[in-house]
Amino acid sequence: MNRSAGGAVDAAVARPLAILCGAGAFPLEVAAEARRAGREPFLIGIVGSTDAAIGAFPHVWLRMGEVGRLFAALKEREIGEMAMIGAMTRPEFADLRLDWGAVKRAAELAQLFRRGDNGLLVGLAAIFEREGVRIVGAHEVAPRLATPAGRLGARPVSPEDQADIALGARLVETLSDFDAGQGAVVANGRVLAIEAAEGTDAMLARVAELRASGRLRLKGPAGVLVKAPKRGQDLRLDMPAIGPLTIEGAARAELRGVALAAGQVLVVERERCARDADAAGLFVIGFQA
Amino acid sequence: MNRSAGGAVDAAVARPLAILCGAGAFPLEVAAEARRAGREPFLIGIVGSTDAAIGAFPHVWLRMGEVGRLFAALKEREIGEMAMIGAMTRPEFADLRLDWGAVKRAAELAQLFRRGDNGLLVGLAAIFEREGVRIVGAHEVAPRLATPAGRLGARPVSPEDQADIALGARLVETLSDFDAGQGAVVANGRVLAIEAAEGTDAMLARVAELRASGRLRLKGPAGVLVKAPKRGQDLRLDMPAIGPLTIEGAARAELRGVALAAGQVLVVERERCARDADAAGLFVIGFQA
Repeated sequence: MNRSAGGAVDAAVARPLAILCGAGAFPLEVAAEARRAGREPFLIGIVGSTDAAIGAFPHVWLRMGEVGRLFAALKEREIGEMAMIGAMTRPEFADLRLDWGAVKRAAELAQLFRRGDNGLLVGLAAIFEREGVRIVGAHEVAPRLATPAGRLGARPVSPEDQADIALGARLVETLSDFDAGQGAVVANGRVLAIEAAEGTDAMLARVAELRASGRLRLKGPAGVLVKAPKRGQDLRLDMPAIGPLTIEGAARAELRGVALAAGQVLVVERERCARDADAAGLFVIGFQA
Repeated sequence: MNRSAGGAVDAAVARPLAILCGAGAFPLEVAAEARRAGREPFLIGIVGSTDAAIGAFPHVWLRMGEVGRLFAALKEREIGEMAMIGAMTRPEFADLRLDWGAVKRAAELAQLFRRGDNGLLVGLAAIFEREGVRIVGAHEVAPRLATPAGRLGARPVSPEDQADIALGARLVETLSDFDAGQGAVVANGRVLAIEAAEGTDAMLARVAELRASGRLRLKGPAGVLVKAPKRGQDLRLDMPAIGPLTIEGAARAELRGVALAAGQVLVVERERCARDADAAGLFVIGFQA
């Protein structure tokens, strides 16, 4: 969506967008991109988590648990859509600072906090939607931030890389049956590492360590990081993402490149990722999942 | 097999057994157990790797690459069966100290060293078998060292544990299609960690770290380490194993227990494992894979 889309954009402008901002710079990137696409973002900062730079946009600061104030802020601005962007540390229910709006929903919230991370998010999304606030994903409000199909940097992909990418993609897809695994590292047909609760950065650090210690002997650059969401994963609530740290991790692990499910993985700071990957001799590619 | 098996044991005594000893105390345990079962073990130590305690058995010391001397030692003692036990660090082909028996086979050996670890082992086994030395597994010469079905320690297994064990076993079985994964950690239906090239100890350390750092929030003891060989894995060449270090790692990760494919995973120092597990409040169980 861009300004040349005419009427569609005007309609979008009429619909303001809230962004509930987790940690890091990515919420700001989404806000800027949404604005470029003709939306007017209103940012919700969480005290102690969110980057102070959200001050560059219309915003409000809340504490975890101030559900009533959050709904009031959305209502006041007639906001019907909200994206939840950036990493949020899951609080303990007992640590929430419940305001009146939260106390009214305390029993329901306490129930949700007994669920796993995903169950909690799904439950929170349901509460918002019931209040007339549709939850949208970064890929919807800022589609340019999702991985495009094809090459992102300058480095080409060899047929051997393609084979590793296909194996990794098949592996990650298979792990969906176990609600696990958004990533894996595959080198020359061999699975070196599989991501579960530790996350991608820790997985890459592990591969780097195994190589540095000599426990994993591979000559020169070898291996591909493959990332894709789980099958059926709600991308509005939990979308896999990479950024410059991922590229740095892949370089430290002396990989050949990074392969991402096109349209389904966010790339934070895309230009910098492509530049860093080029400098490190890594390919970055979006594959059709 | 035991002394009451009569004639069968006498026949076994007539067939001496060589044990090519990697690092650690496990080769000695296999030797002692094989002797208990009526075999007369002859130990082959590798200079710089094998525990000096093999001196308690008839033995010979060789350097990596002294293939000729190895075959001569086996022939001299009319040994037709050999087990390869304990971790061996894979040497570079160029670092081998080739004797005449190795030089004769240099071209073939050099080829094998281009393969992966498993390919190398399969190739070496084929060379031995061609020379009339059958390769046998620890589970064959010392079956008592393999995981029995049922409980090993005192701690019982709850129905929830059983569900986690079943999920982990299904996951590890599925990963066989990718020639990956001899282990996983599952807690309350959630996959916390999947083992690939890093090995079980590193995987357990990861879970411990994720919990200690608060990135993984689980209350009290939670989770099961599930270990099983890959489908089709040649247990004579590469059999999964646990030992006191595994129990220690599981305790550090605050797991509820350890589940092993019965008959297919070796338990090093079984009595100590059971004792340590009891002390740490962990169950250890052999499940029917």
